[in-house]
Amino acid sequence: MKIKYLLLFLFTIQLADSWAQVKPSSFTIIPLGVKGGLDESDLSAYLVSAKGNNQFICLDAGTINHGLQKAVANHLLKATNAQKAQQDFIKAYFISHAHLDHTAGLILNSPNDNAKNIYGFESVLDVLKNNYFTWKSWANFGNEGDKPILNKYNYSLLSPNKEVEINNTDLRVKPFLLSHVNPYESSAFLINNKGQYLLYLGDTGADTVEKSNQLETLWRSIAPLIQQGVLHGIMIEVSFSNQVPEKSLFGHLTPSLLMSELTKLNSLSGNRLRNTPILVTHIKPCDTCENQIKKEIADANTLVLKIIYPVQGQKIEL
Amino acid sequence: MKIKYLLLFLFTIQLADSWAQVKPSSFTIIPLGVKGGLDESDLSAYLVSAKGNNQFICLDAGTINHGLQKAVANHLLKATNAQKAQQDFIKAYFISHAHLDHTAGLILNSPNDNAKNIYGFESVLDVLKNNYFTWKSWANFGNEGDKPILNKYNYSLLSPNKEVEINNTDLRVKPFLLSHVNPYESSAFLINNKGQYLLYLGDTGADTVEKSNQLETLWRSIAPLIQQGVLHGIMIEVSFSNQVPEKSLFGHLTPSLLMSELTKLNSLSGNRLRNTPILVTHIKPCDTCENQIKKEIADANTLVLKIIYPVQGQKIEL
Repeated sequence: MKIKYLLLFLFTIQLADSWAQVKPSSFTIIPLGVKGGLDESDLSAYLVSAKGNNQFICLDAGTINHGLQKAVANHLLKATNAQKAQQDFIKAYFISHAHLDHTAGLILNSPNDNAKNIYGFESVLDVLKNNYFTWKSWANFGNEGDKPILNKYNYSLLSPNKEVEINNTDLRVKPFLLSHVNPYESSAFLINNKGQYLLYLGDTGADTVEKSNQLETLWRSIAPLIQQGVLHGIMIEVSFSNQVPEKSLFGHLTPSLLMSELTKLNSLSGNRLRNTPILVTHIKPCDTCENQIKKEIADANTLVLKIIYPVQGQKIEL
Repeated sequence: MKIKYLLLFLFTIQLADSWAQVKPSSFTIIPLGVKGGLDESDLSAYLVSAKGNNQFICLDAGTINHGLQKAVANHLLKATNAQKAQQDFIKAYFISHAHLDHTAGLILNSPNDNAKNIYGFESVLDVLKNNYFTWKSWANFGNEGDKPILNKYNYSLLSPNKEVEINNTDLRVKPFLLSHVNPYESSAFLINNKGQYLLYLGDTGADTVEKSNQLETLWRSIAPLIQQGVLHGIMIEVSFSNQVPEKSLFGHLTPSLLMSELTKLNSLSGNRLRNTPILVTHIKPCDTCENQIKKEIADANTLVLKIIYPVQGQKIEL
């Protein structure tokens, strides 16, 4: 009798899993850049929209123009060129932290952009204001800071765990604090399309290494969404392979640390994480790093999670 | 009799011209990026060495890695990858001004670079120190500024018109002040390979627009080198086409302003400028801008100057 119930239980889980796996996609992602450094043509930046409309928010902005060139060439955005695509389809920027590999594309392309909001925590907006849009580094396209103020971008301050509505899109975004070489901050963004969700993490160290509980706090917040089958994906960084020692991680994850964090999240989610694809971002380039990291993730993937590696200019629907 | 002397005179000029035109080249230039904005994969950066050795200085550093990838793929630098090429072949950086389209590649690739000097005027080094290598924008790889100081790059202060010897190369460099939206400064670098010269100008406005005499001062300094036939090339920017009004030039040149400045230089050089190739840099991309600017330069080239348009990853010998 016990075995019968166990089989029924397993069968029900399987059914639920299948349902979750075939649930209709709610988000379109267009990666404009995916690498974790060095190659200026392909640095972290991801367009995200509610599936079926072209009103994108841009999560980080390491490379904008070169990624948009590819997206336009691949007919993902209907525009005559990358500049026009930037003006027409990006409705707002969300910057996880102000390091240049997450902001250079936004700054370099600001002369040809049109007015929109830049969302970020105070730690992010302060650097844009005081270090980049200062006239010394770049013309001040912000709406605060060194004069003359060109007033193209509106700095939109985020507060941790407080969801905001994004004008001209169907999306709402709730930001979370991450730790990126404690005490330096980074951010995660939970994107809400009418009760369907996508989670994006900027650069982050593991809680154990950072002596922090920011990831655990985030996992506890999103675990119910995984259990309800409404979290469509988690975009999370793996910068270095397992060979890199802890002291040289500089606030980043390895395959081993990723899997350790995801194992915690899986436990908090009633072992349902396999229904939520994991998109691995921010691999730091070297001759063999990408293959090595992919191999280490595959070897450590005892949870049988669905792993996706975003490619610049190639659409993902989740 | 008068006609005879005139013919002899013209013949002598022609001979001198031919001699100048066939003088052996002294410099190798490898453009790592040539555009004046937007496309993060191709922003101003030029490797220059004494011809025949591989000890390069890097003039501006908008795009490093992506340009080195092309240079390595084209077998211009013998290295297994771009990072190795950066470490092995770049001996020093010269930054004309600190705007991000001239510095992003240096900053983004600093984690994988090795120790070397960054040369610049105080206005340049101050921005690197106070705006970029600050831990908030990027780890401090400099030898001054916010702690901890990682001490990879040595800030090497330049003084106007004072030539410096560049360690590990055969080159000496004399910097000049330029005006780039007065009172903001930019720089020109006169590179000296044992008495043979190459001139590189960073972003610059025309004297008439900038209400400045920096270009005239520079022209007077280099005119004797043109007359002596030892100036092998002038790398100078043209950002916008003639259609862009003066108030929207933001410290840049148009074909018309370029030709007006070069006409002054030609006069100061005894009408000998046609022996010195002009390399046009920093064209701001748009669908038709490059062709339009080339056409306008060709139309205005009544001096019959030799015009070269550098291409990323394609070697030039001068």
